[in-house]
Amino acid sequence: MTDSVQILELNAFRSASPPTEPGSHLGRRLRNFGAASVLFYREPIEMVSASGPWIIAADGRRYLDFYNNVPSVGHCHPRVVAAVASQMAKININTRYLCPIVDDYLDKLKDTLPSALSNVIMTCSGSEANDLALRIAAEASGGTGFVVTENAYHGNTRYVTEISPAAQKVAVRPNYVATIPAPSESGSVGEEFAKNLRTAICALESRQQKFAGFICDSIFSSDGIFSDPAGFLKLAVTETRKAGGVFIADEVQPGFARSGETFWGFARHGITPDIVTMGKPMGNGFPMAAMATRPDLLVRFCKDVGYFNTFGGNPVAAAAGLAVLDVIRDEGLQENALQIGQYLKGRLSDIARSRRRIGAIRGAGLFLGVDICRDGRPDAAATSNVINRLKEHGVLVGAAGRTASTLKLRPPLCLTTTEADIFADALEKALSKVD
Amino acid sequence: MTDSVQILELNAFRSASPPTEPGSHLGRRLRNFGAASVLFYREPIEMVSASGPWIIAADGRRYLDFYNNVPSVGHCHPRVVAAVASQMAKININTRYLCPIVDDYLDKLKDTLPSALSNVIMTCSGSEANDLALRIAAEASGGTGFVVTENAYHGNTRYVTEISPAAQKVAVRPNYVATIPAPSESGSVGEEFAKNLRTAICALESRQQKFAGFICDSIFSSDGIFSDPAGFLKLAVTETRKAGGVFIADEVQPGFARSGETFWGFARHGITPDIVTMGKPMGNGFPMAAMATRPDLLVRFCKDVGYFNTFGGNPVAAAAGLAVLDVIRDEGLQENALQIGQYLKGRLSDIARSRRRIGAIRGAGLFLGVDICRDGRPDAAATSNVINRLKEHGVLVGAAGRTASTLKLRPPLCLTTTEADIFADALEKALSKVD
Repeated sequence: MTDSVQILELNAFRSASPPTEPGSHLGRRLRNFGAASVLFYREPIEMVSASGPWIIAADGRRYLDFYNNVPSVGHCHPRVVAAVASQMAKININTRYLCPIVDDYLDKLKDTLPSALSNVIMTCSGSEANDLALRIAAEASGGTGFVVTENAYHGNTRYVTEISPAAQKVAVRPNYVATIPAPSESGSVGEEFAKNLRTAICALESRQQKFAGFICDSIFSSDGIFSDPAGFLKLAVTETRKAGGVFIADEVQPGFARSGETFWGFARHGITPDIVTMGKPMGNGFPMAAMATRPDLLVRFCKDVGYFNTFGGNPVAAAAGLAVLDVIRDEGLQENALQIGQYLKGRLSDIARSRRRIGAIRGAGLFLGVDICRDGRPDAAATSNVINRLKEHGVLVGAAGRTASTLKLRPPLCLTTTEADIFADALEKALSKVD
Repeated sequence: MTDSVQILELNAFRSASPPTEPGSHLGRRLRNFGAASVLFYREPIEMVSASGPWIIAADGRRYLDFYNNVPSVGHCHPRVVAAVASQMAKININTRYLCPIVDDYLDKLKDTLPSALSNVIMTCSGSEANDLALRIAAEASGGTGFVVTENAYHGNTRYVTEISPAAQKVAVRPNYVATIPAPSESGSVGEEFAKNLRTAICALESRQQKFAGFICDSIFSSDGIFSDPAGFLKLAVTETRKAGGVFIADEVQPGFARSGETFWGFARHGITPDIVTMGKPMGNGFPMAAMATRPDLLVRFCKDVGYFNTFGGNPVAAAAGLAVLDVIRDEGLQENALQIGQYLKGRLSDIARSRRRIGAIRGAGLFLGVDICRDGRPDAAATSNVINRLKEHGVLVGAAGRTASTLKLRPPLCLTTTEADIFADALEKALSKVD
C-alpha cells in the first residue's frame, strides 16, 4: 500500500508476536479482519471522538491529525453531520427516481468544473470512479493500454489495482500497463515528463496494446508529492491526445480545495481533463465519489453497457456533498489552505536550515511532502522513526513515495496557525531525537 | 440492466422526445447524468419523503414501495437514522485505527454466518465485494474461469460487469465466463442444475480457462426469482468443489432475513459457501457492503496484493449495520417476512385462479416473483403494462427475468397484512385492465 512504512501489518497468520489476547480489542480485530488487517503503528491507537483537526484516543490522549484527507473540512463537522441526519430522516432512495437535492448538488459541483465536463456519474468510492473512468477511456480510444506513474495508487478493484503499482506487494505488470517515473521538480520538468510518457506509449504499442489513456493524480501523492512548477502537466496532456488517448485526472487526493491555489489539482496546471474522478473528501466521510466527463465520451460508453450504482448519487450523499461545498465556501477553506500551507512551508524551511535530515519540501496548500534523508539520500528507516516519534508527540502523519521516505502532510483544511506551529514544533523535537 | 422493461432510458442524445424543458427537474437531470440517465417510468416520479413501506411524491401522492430492497427495515427507520447521526457526530475514521463499534458489529454479523467464514472485509458496495470475491476465488483456485447464470447480475465494476450478462446491453462473453440456465423449479432441479454446471466447467476448460468458481444469488433475482425446492443448490456446490472451484454466494439480494425462513439465502439450501458477499439492505441505505470468507482463502490473497478500503468498515457504517441487525431482531422482521410473505403468496394464488394472465408464483418470504403470461407464455409487454398500471394505483414494482416478464416483489420486511392487501387489490385492478 502507499503508506507501507508506518503500517504494521498485523497479520495473525504471519506475524510472530502480535499482542493477540483473545479478549483485547486488537485480538478481536485480528480475528475479524484476518490477513486483511492493516493497522497503523506497532501499538495501534483506539480512537473515540474527533473534532476539527483533533482526534481523542481511548486513553485520553489527543492527536493532531495531519494524516487523514477524508475529514477535510474538519472531523465531524456539525453542518455535514446535520445535513446527513436530516436527509436520512426524510428520504434516501436511488437515482431512478428524481430527488431535487441530487441535481442541486450536481449543479453546484459542476460550477467548480470545466464546463465541458457536464455529465457526472456518482459512485460510492474513488475506486469505483476510476474503474469506470478506465472503461470509458478504453471505449473512447478503442485502446487498452494505460500509462501510470511508477508508484501510482488509483484504488482497489481488480482493474484499478492492476494499474496501481503502489497497491501491489508482489509487482504485477499486466501487458497493458506502462509506467513512467514521477515528475522530478528539477530541470525541464514538463518536457522530461512528456518525453517519458511518449516512450511509455511506444512501449505499449510495441506490445500490441493500443494506447487508451494516461491517468495521474496531479499532486502525485503516492509517488512522493510533486506539484511544481504548476503547469508542467500541460505537455503530457497534449502528448496523450496526440497519441489518441484520454487524459484522466484522478482528483481523489488533490481535489476539493486542498492545494489552496485552485479548487482542483488539475486547474493549477491550466488543463482541462477528458475525465475527472473524485472521492475521499467529497462527503467529509460519507461514502461517496464521482466521475465527471464530456457527454460524447459517456454516450459512446453507454451504448454497450450503461452504468447504474445503487447507492451512488443518493440524496443523503448529495446532502453531505452540498454541506461540504458550502463549508469550503463559507469558512474560506481554500484560502485558508493556501495561507496556512504557505505558513507551514515557511516553518518547515526554517527547520530544514538547522536540521540536515530534511531534504526537499514540496507541495501546494495543505498537501505537503517533506523528504527525510541521510547524507542527502532518502532514508526510509529515519522516516518511519520520525513518524513514530511524531505519534509520541501527539501528531498523526504518514509516508509517501516509492522508498517511503517522504513525510506526507494532509491536515484538515481548517487548520490554524497555532496548530501548524504545534506540528512544526513536534517535528523539530522528533528530528532532534533522530539526528 | 436487470429492470430494463420498466426503465425508460431517458437519453438526451438518443431519445427523440423526452420532456426536457431546460428549467424542469427532468431537464436538469438529463443535463447532469447525460447518457447514463436511467429513470423509472415514462413520467419519472419526484420523491420527497418516505417512512416504512411508503414513499410520498412531490405531487402529494403516496406509493407503496414493493420495489426497493435497500430500505429493508423500512424507509428512514428512526433507529438507523439516529445511530448514523450519533456516530457521525462522534468519530468517523478508517480501519487503520481501532474503533470498538466496528468489531462489535463484525462480531454480531458473524453470529449470523457459518463459523468457518470468520474473516470479513468491509467495502462500500456489493460490486466492490463481488469484485474482491472473484479475485480471491481466482487466487485460491489458480483458475480464471467463472460460471454464472444466463441473466445474472453481480454489479458494476469492469470485472463484475463482464460476468453479469444482465448488465450488458450488447452481450460481451469473455472467454473466461460460461453461463448456465437459471434453475427451472420443475423436475429434478438440483440434478439438472448441477449437470449444466458440469457442462459449463467443461466448456471453460476446453477454452483453456481453468475453473475458478461458481457465483450465484440464491434467490436468482435477475434471472426471474427461483427459490425452490430449498436445498437444490447443494449438488451444484459439491460439483463446484469437485472441479477445484470456489463457491461464492452473492447475498446482496436475498440476505438479511428477506427470505423469511433463514437469515441468509444460502442457509435455505443447507450449504456453507466459501465466500459470501452482501450489500444493499446491510445499512438500510447507508452505503456499505462486505465479503466474508475463510481465513485460509484470505491469507493466500493478501500475500500478493492485500486490500484496503478507505470508507469500508468506518464506524458510521458499523453503527448503521448494528442498528439494522437490532431492528431485524427486535421487530421480528424475519418472522414477519415469512408470515406476510406466505399471506401474500396466498392472495396471489387466489388472484391467479381467476386471472389467466398470472403464470407461476415463486419465491420465499418477501422476495416473490409472479410471471405475467399470455396463453401460458411470458409476456413482457403485458408485464410492463401491469407495472405502469400498478403505478397508477400507487404501487411501485419492477420486472425480472431474461424476458422481463416476471413481477419482482421486494417490499420492506416490516410490511403489514393490510399493506399486502393493498398490493393484492391493486394488482387485481391492474390485471383487469390488461386482460
